[in-house]
Amino acid sequence: MSVAKEAEAANAKYAASFTKGDLALPPARKVAIVACMDARLDTARALGLEEGDAHVIRNAGGRVSDALRSIVISQQLLGTREIIIVHHTDCGMLTFTDDVIRGKIRADLKQNVDHIAFLPFGDLRQSVLDDIQILKESPLVLDVPITGYLYEVETGKIVKVE
Amino acid sequence: MSVAKEAEAANAKYAASFTKGDLALPPARKVAIVACMDARLDTARALGLEEGDAHVIRNAGGRVSDALRSIVISQQLLGTREIIIVHHTDCGMLTFTDDVIRGKIRADLKQNVDHIAFLPFGDLRQSVLDDIQILKESPLVLDVPITGYLYEVETGKIVKVE
Repeated sequence: MSVAKEAEAANAKYAASFTKGDLALPPARKVAIVACMDARLDTARALGLEEGDAHVIRNAGGRVSDALRSIVISQQLLGTREIIIVHHTDCGMLTFTDDVIRGKIRADLKQNVDHIAFLPFGDLRQSVLDDIQILKESPLVLDVPITGYLYEVETGKIVKVE
Repeated sequence: MSVAKEAEAANAKYAASFTKGDLALPPARKVAIVACMDARLDTARALGLEEGDAHVIRNAGGRVSDALRSIVISQQLLGTREIIIVHHTDCGMLTFTDDVIRGKIRADLKQNVDHIAFLPFGDLRQSVLDDIQILKESPLVLDVPITGYLYEVETGKIVKVE
């Protein structure tokens, strides 16, 4: 069975006891989370977020340079005034380089993706510091509190990076 | 108190009862979810996902054209073989145009962002169909099952778009 079919069945249970149909569009806690897409990270459970609380932006690595469109919309149109970045241990982004993935795609898919920056990194802690700096220096991002964490997939803990 | 501080407190509770420290890096259910960043949508709860199950890629609108880097990494390096798209009712992307947000940023931030496509849409159902088509036509995306849904923020239900 496809995961889509399984998700439909799971959703029917979720909707049957759903009581949050009157939440407002802007996030109640005025925060945008930027986190890695990693399957082991459940941002809501790990950070204590309820439906309606926070924008959740996720991509490979949780890289802010690939989240800028969403962050601008979040701040300019929906009023968020804090940003939390979450990268994590054992991240797939530590396992390859642009050259490796570009070569794989050229070999397997016969496509040239030399124009795409896949944003891998070699140092986990530095990747968080780099992303905080990118946001602080961007003229498109408001001067709001920005906090960066490493989520430990081994323990479930977040550790502040500073 | 900042949301970051509150998240640290919530995370301490999560980590205290954490039992999933040995999950593999590749998603167990071999699926990538592409969903809107909207605060009201908890992708894990609404779709029945547990830690380790699925890549979760989220951005403003849940637009696949802004998720392509992550989808390629998900498929090429981490073996996902299904894609689920989730847009939703009352989406903020229905409320503006590129001209509106570009004008606001020019006025408020004194920045020219005419080069950024913010990917708003006027028709919710069509936005899902458009995104399915973009993936099906992309030479960078594998020929895998793709299912699109509208999540109803009023009811908690997902409705398949086809």
